[in-house]
Order: sequence, then C-alpha cells, then structure tokens
Amino acid sequence: MIVNFAQRAHNMNYETDYIVRSLLDTDWYKLAMLQFIWKHFRGTRVRFSLINRSRSVRLAEIIDEAELRRQLDHVRSLRFARSELVWLAGNTFAGKVGIFDPDFIAWLRDDFRMPEYTLSKADGQWRLDFEGPWELVTMWEIYALSIINELKTRAGLKGMSDFELDILYAKAKAKLWGKIERLRGVPGLKLADFGTRRRHSFLWQDYVVRALRDELGEAFVGTSNAYIAFRNDLEAIGTNAHELAMVLAALARTPAQLKASQYEVLRLWQETYGGALLIMLPDAYGTTQFLRDAPDWVADWTGMRIDSKNPYVAGDEYIAWLESRGRDPRHKVVIPSDGLDVDDILGLHAYFGGAIADGLAPGDFKSARDFLDPSKWTPGVRIRDSEGWGTLATNDLRGCHPRGLAVLDPLSLVCKVSAVEVDGAWKPAVKLSDNYTKATGPADEIARYREVFGADGVENAPVVV
Amino acid sequence: MIVNFAQRAHNMNYETDYIVRSLLDTDWYKLAMLQFIWKHFRGTRVRFSLINRSRSVRLAEIIDEAELRRQLDHVRSLRFARSELVWLAGNTFAGKVGIFDPDFIAWLRDDFRMPEYTLSKADGQWRLDFEGPWELVTMWEIYALSIINELKTRAGLKGMSDFELDILYAKAKAKLWGKIERLRGVPGLKLADFGTRRRHSFLWQDYVVRALRDELGEAFVGTSNAYIAFRNDLEAIGTNAHELAMVLAALARTPAQLKASQYEVLRLWQETYGGALLIMLPDAYGTTQFLRDAPDWVADWTGMRIDSKNPYVAGDEYIAWLESRGRDPRHKVVIPSDGLDVDDILGLHAYFGGAIADGLAPGDFKSARDFLDPSKWTPGVRIRDSEGWGTLATNDLRGCHPRGLAVLDPLSLVCKVSAVEVDGAWKPAVKLSDNYTKATGPADEIARYREVFGADGVENAPVVV
Repeated sequence: MIVNFAQRAHNMNYETDYIVRSLLDTDWYKLAMLQFIWKHFRGTRVRFSLINRSRSVRLAEIIDEAELRRQLDHVRSLRFARSELVWLAGNTFAGKVGIFDPDFIAWLRDDFRMPEYTLSKADGQWRLDFEGPWELVTMWEIYALSIINELKTRAGLKGMSDFELDILYAKAKAKLWGKIERLRGVPGLKLADFGTRRRHSFLWQDYVVRALRDELGEAFVGTSNAYIAFRNDLEAIGTNAHELAMVLAALARTPAQLKASQYEVLRLWQETYGGALLIMLPDAYGTTQFLRDAPDWVADWTGMRIDSKNPYVAGDEYIAWLESRGRDPRHKVVIPSDGLDVDDILGLHAYFGGAIADGLAPGDFKSARDFLDPSKWTPGVRIRDSEGWGTLATNDLRGCHPRGLAVLDPLSLVCKVSAVEVDGAWKPAVKLSDNYTKATGPADEIARYREVFGADGVENAPVVV
Repeated sequence: MIVNFAQRAHNMNYETDYIVRSLLDTDWYKLAMLQFIWKHFRGTRVRFSLINRSRSVRLAEIIDEAELRRQLDHVRSLRFARSELVWLAGNTFAGKVGIFDPDFIAWLRDDFRMPEYTLSKADGQWRLDFEGPWELVTMWEIYALSIINELKTRAGLKGMSDFELDILYAKAKAKLWGKIERLRGVPGLKLADFGTRRRHSFLWQDYVVRALRDELGEAFVGTSNAYIAFRNDLEAIGTNAHELAMVLAALARTPAQLKASQYEVLRLWQETYGGALLIMLPDAYGTTQFLRDAPDWVADWTGMRIDSKNPYVAGDEYIAWLESRGRDPRHKVVIPSDGLDVDDILGLHAYFGGAIADGLAPGDFKSARDFLDPSKWTPGVRIRDSEGWGTLATNDLRGCHPRGLAVLDPLSLVCKVSAVEVDGAWKPAVKLSDNYTKATGPADEIARYREVFGADGVENAPVVV
C-alpha cells in the first residue's frame, strides 16, 4: 500500500477550498458585458443586491458569517492571471479572434479589483449589497451566487459519513447519466451549460461539463463558465443579460428615451462586437412590444434568447415577427434558457426543429429514439434552436440525499442590479419581464414603466374591461 | 496539486491485482468443513469440477487462458499467513473460542498447499477439474469461482472509458443503497453476506459488506468471507455444504449405508464441533424423507439451512416436523440462502417472524414501514429466521452498465464434487435436491439413489399413476 504522506499532511492542514478559484470562474458573458460597460458606461455607479426567492430556506442560519466573509474576501484578493488574459486576448469567441480590445485586457490586468461588499442579516437571510462603478460591481453577481450556493452545499454535506457522501454522489452521477442517455444521439440537438450561478459546487459543474463533452459530442456546444472552458479547451458560450437594459432604462430621462433605451442597448452592443454575439434578450420590458416597435435593423440580429416567456410561445412569436419583417427564420436561432430540464430540451428541439407530425405534442419526444422515428417527423426546421441548460444540469441532486433530505435542493437565488446613480441620487432599477407577477422594482416605478411599455403579450396581466 | 509519483509509477508497472489475495479469501464454512474432512476423511480422493450453467455465456471466449492460469497459479503459491492462523486459532466462531484444533492449525501452516488443476476448453467453456485428497481439493471451489467471476468482470470492464466506469459504479452504489434503504430498521431482521463465490469482485464485496455493517447495524450479523471478516473485525458466518453428504453417500457400500450416510454426516459434525454450528442442510437427497426418517437427536440441532426447496414450504415443513418431534420451533432457526434478494428477505422474515395478519401475503412487506404498521402484524414469532444474502448482494450490477450491456450480469457458475475414489475407482458424486430436475450425477446413479431415497415432497417429480 503506497501512502501519499504529502497528500495526507495537506488534507490535515489545508483550509477548506476556496469556492472561487479564479476571476475567470464566472459566466463568460459577464466578461463580454464588462467590456461593453467599460467602453460605454465606465464610472456609472450601480448597486447589485442578492435576493433569495426561496425564503423558507433561512440561509443566515445555514451559512456561517466568518466563512462567508472569508470566501468573499478571497475573491477580492484575486487578480486575473497572465495565462488567463492571454486566453481572453488570443482565443476565438463566437467565431472571432480578438473580441477583447488590448486596452480592455490591459485594464483587466492593471486596474481591475473586486470592490467592497456590505453584509448584514435580516429575517434569517443574508443581505448582501455591492455598490460602486458598474464595471467593477457587475462582476460580483456570479461570484456571490456561486459562493452562497456552494456554502449551502457544504453545510448540507456536513455530518454525512464517508459512505453517505459516496452514495450521494453515486446517485447524483446515476441521475446525470440518466439525463445524458436521453439526450445522446438526438439529431441536430445543440445545448450548452449555463449552470455556473446555481451550481452545486465548482467541482460538480466541472464534472458535469466534462461528462457532457465526452458523451454528447457535437450536440454539446460549450459552457458559459469561462474558467472551465479555459481549463478544458471548450467553447465559452454566452449572450448578454437584463442588467444592460435595466441600467440604460434607469439612465433614461424621458418616456421616449426609456422606450428607446431597449434598442439603444442593441445598437451599442452591435457597435462593440460587430457581427458577432448578436443575440438579443427582448423580455426585460415585454417581448411583444419589443418586437412590434423594433427598428428594422433589429431583425438582422442572429437570434433571441428566451427567458421569462413560455419558450414555445416566444419562439412562435419570434418566427412570425421575422416573417412579417421579411427575414427567413430558418437562418435565425432561439436560445431557451429558463429552468430547462431534459423534457423541455427535447420538447423544444422537436418543436422548433420541425420534428413533430400531426397529433403529437413536444412532450411525446423522450429520447433520440423518438427523433429517429420517421412517423413522428414532419421534415423542415422552423428555426434553429440551441438550449441553455442551467440549474438542472449543474445542481440537480434532488432525490439523491441518502437520508431523503432536501438540503441540497437548488435555491432560487439571484443577484441583480437594484439601483443606478443618476445625478447623484439612487434611482431604482426595474424589470417588467413577460410575466406580470415577476416584475421587479418599487411599485410606483413599475407603474411608470408599464405606462411606457404596456402589457401586450404579458402573462398574468390584469384584464381591464 | 500534489502528485503521488510512487502511486503513478506503481500503477504503470504493476501487474493487475491478484483476485485471491489470501487463502482466507474463501467462505469460512470451507475452513470448518476442511477441519471436519481433515479429522475424519484425510486422504479420501475426490474430484471437483467447474460447471457454468449459463451456457450462453461463452467463458472461454471471454477469459484469456494465460491470465486464468496466472491467477490459479498465484493461489497455488499462497500460504496461510501467521496473523491469519492466529485469528483462526484465537477468534470466537459461532460463539466458541478454539473451534479449530491446534494440530489442524499446525497442519494448515506446515502442510497445506493448494493442489494442481487441469484446464481445458470445450464448447466455448473452460473445463476446470481438480483431483486429489479431499482436504486439499475442496478449497479450490471458492478460489476457482471467484477467479472466474472476477476475470469475467474485468473483461466486461475492459474498453470502458473513465467516465463510463465512474457511472457504472455510481449506478451500482445507488442500487445497493436502494436495497439497504428497504432493509434498514426492520425489527428482528438478521442477515449475513453469503456472496463470496459469485461476487463481482473482491473490492466490491468488501465495499458491500462494509456498507451493510455501517448501515444495518445489528441486523447485519456478518459475512461468510473469512478474509473480509478478519480484516474488518466482523463475525465470520457459515454452516456446511452438500459436498459432505455427497462424498459420504459415494463412500457408502450398501443401500442401507447410503440412506444412513445423510445422518452420519450430522453425527460426525456434532462430534467435531460439539454444540456449535449445528445447522443442517437436509436437501441433498430430499428434505421430506430426510426429516421423516431422521433419528430423534437430529431434532435437537439448532436449525436448518434451506437451499433447493421453496423456502416458505421448507420452513413450514420444518416447523411441523419439529412439533411432531416435540420440539419448540421458536427456539430453532431457518436460514434461507438460495438466490435471495430484498423482496425475499423481507417476505421470509415477515412470514416466519409472524408479522403477517389475515389477508396479507409476504410480498406485501416492502420495507421497515410495513413491519412497523400494527395492522399488518400478528404477534408471535413462528421460528427464528436469518437470511443468507448471496449473489444479489455482491454481484447485482444488472441495469448498471452505462451502455445497457448485460456483460456484468451474474453467472450461474458452480464448482462441485463430481467423483470420489472408492477402492481405486472413480465413483460419481450424486445430488438429488428438492427439485427433480435439479439432480446432478449420471442418470443410472441418480436412478439408484432415487430408489433409496424416494421422491416424497420433491418438486417436478413425474406423477406415476
């Protein structure tokens, strides 16, 4: 029996792993957005806030304050490593080399430091706020989320025996494999890992990503996690997020500017990245009004990410809109990304891929077998689809706890821009979304936004007779 | 990252693990029988033969000859280690210290060597025969079975990727845990691992045994594997096997001696072990005739192992017989051991433990919950029961292969005494069993035995009008 004395000594003396091992351990789109912010909005002051929508899980009773501070402080001590910057500067992203400006890379190297945080406790929850220049504060979103999620995971693992831990991960792996089995061999399927922010742990996301790469081949197009992409030579994948529209909306001074701000985001993005990365996220203030009132050049964008709307409905709406604007949907792409699991991924791919014959529903597609069954196939792709698989890829250990506990179930935890400084005063950031009940922001501000954007096509909107 | 260079170098250069790591890596009852044979039948020449009843699995095409010989030769090079002999001599077995005679221990140390084997190929199967003194040859049974089974396992693992191996064992562990979950907390349950001979691998049996020990507590009474018991400070469990009755039957010279030989085994066993280990195995030539014609002292034995008969029927028959002989069944024990899995274990325990109220069948008992439900319980143990859990404890990876293959499914492989030398000539060994179709031996010999023993209570016996 060979004893690794160094390993044993290391295990005895080593502090628990840091959760964020590198500043690259974030969604790659945060870096794309960072350059956008750095170019166009440097110095704009914003506030990001952490919100646990799963209020019954009292995180402040689960996660120790000292450990939380230790993890957050560690992120503040991190710098981009030389090899990481070389990768950002020299790697191909979205089909393009040199997507990051040398000046931006130099700024990341010389000036980028994670700013302070404010931690307090209320109602059994950790209150975590980040205030400062947008081009620094924005980066807290993913680091904070993965820290909180993984500390909750570690608390859930505490007290389990070696054997229970072994069984937990055995069951989790078996569950993952069951999902992969259903996805393997589906013609034309494309999916990416979007699961950084709500992952079970860094190591588990890394495992899941490598499993998807090894087993799904071409169908796995990459990961949103820049660090995991970097370390495994995978494609880093990403679009952009609501914070861009929300900050620009907060900065608008008139109703007309507010209405126009949602397109101004796209105009500036396009200016920043040219023909690359032209995937819009139109649901911040309602997809229907966004598409209806969009300038014609918006229809030239490559595709649309679908978030708060039923993705079948949203995709149909996008297809009809493209046709009304004289564009061929078959050259465009939809990227559904909201809480998907295997059923949704297969169903959406069947629906948009034109696999569904008369009398069948998307839910009838359960695995590659169904896609290969000619009786179920009405040839003709309606629009290309590429699915973003998030929480239920990297944090689905539901049912795996050996004692049947739910302590490892995923949380609905977000970290969003909550306010923007305008003329020296904090102005709330607002999102309406495609679901009336999911609007965020103070009630009076939401009402003001609704007057500008309306509620066409928004789910759960009150009926006014 | 700490690199264990020694481990890496070791892994690069090391030959595959030997399957049999110690002469103790056998069922403990082989050692109890070995002492019995050594005391009473030293020098009796026998032949053991390997038979693969799963003929569709062509083992000679799966297992490489050189590797098979390497493993068998390795067993021949093994000697009992000093610490192993100290354990055999000093440990408590079946509640008694010093069950092994110092002279027997000395013989194990000084004279015991595994004898030769004969290997040949026929019909896609390995033909493996062992001839020589019974007190040496008998030990080949378990070593040969675990070697063949594990070489088949290794062939099944070959060509699997790291990830597939990881998933295979993840699924196997999840499956094992599912079984343990159902067994945990059942009042009065007693079970032992009887799975050495058909295990998936040594390491897997060791894992399963430690899992059962950690999770089932008092309900897990021990393992049949002497080496695993020794290394983990567990109770070594065992009764005795058909080979005793079969060799004594072959040595009988008259029909009366043949009929009496099945009780002579018990008389000699009792003489050898005193009050310990008095578990009979009455089905070699039919349980019904065995009990009916048994001398009265047989009813003083502690219990009965149930093998080839439906265990519910056999237990009822034993209970009725004990009552007819004026013994209280509640002080006796039945040990069912033939191909049990969780359903059988729970069902048999409910049936003999008196847990079943009117209108319920043993199959209605699915977990501890049912045993704790008073509506299902008619108090009153009918007879104590202790289950021997074999192949489906240590080799149930059915459904776990990541590609859905059956190559790791367990085989029906046995290694039995096939002939005994009497007056310089080989006489076939015969077993009738409690199932007419499961008799083993040449047809004329079976017929001769049936004349002596009859077919009362034997399943599938032809009806003579």
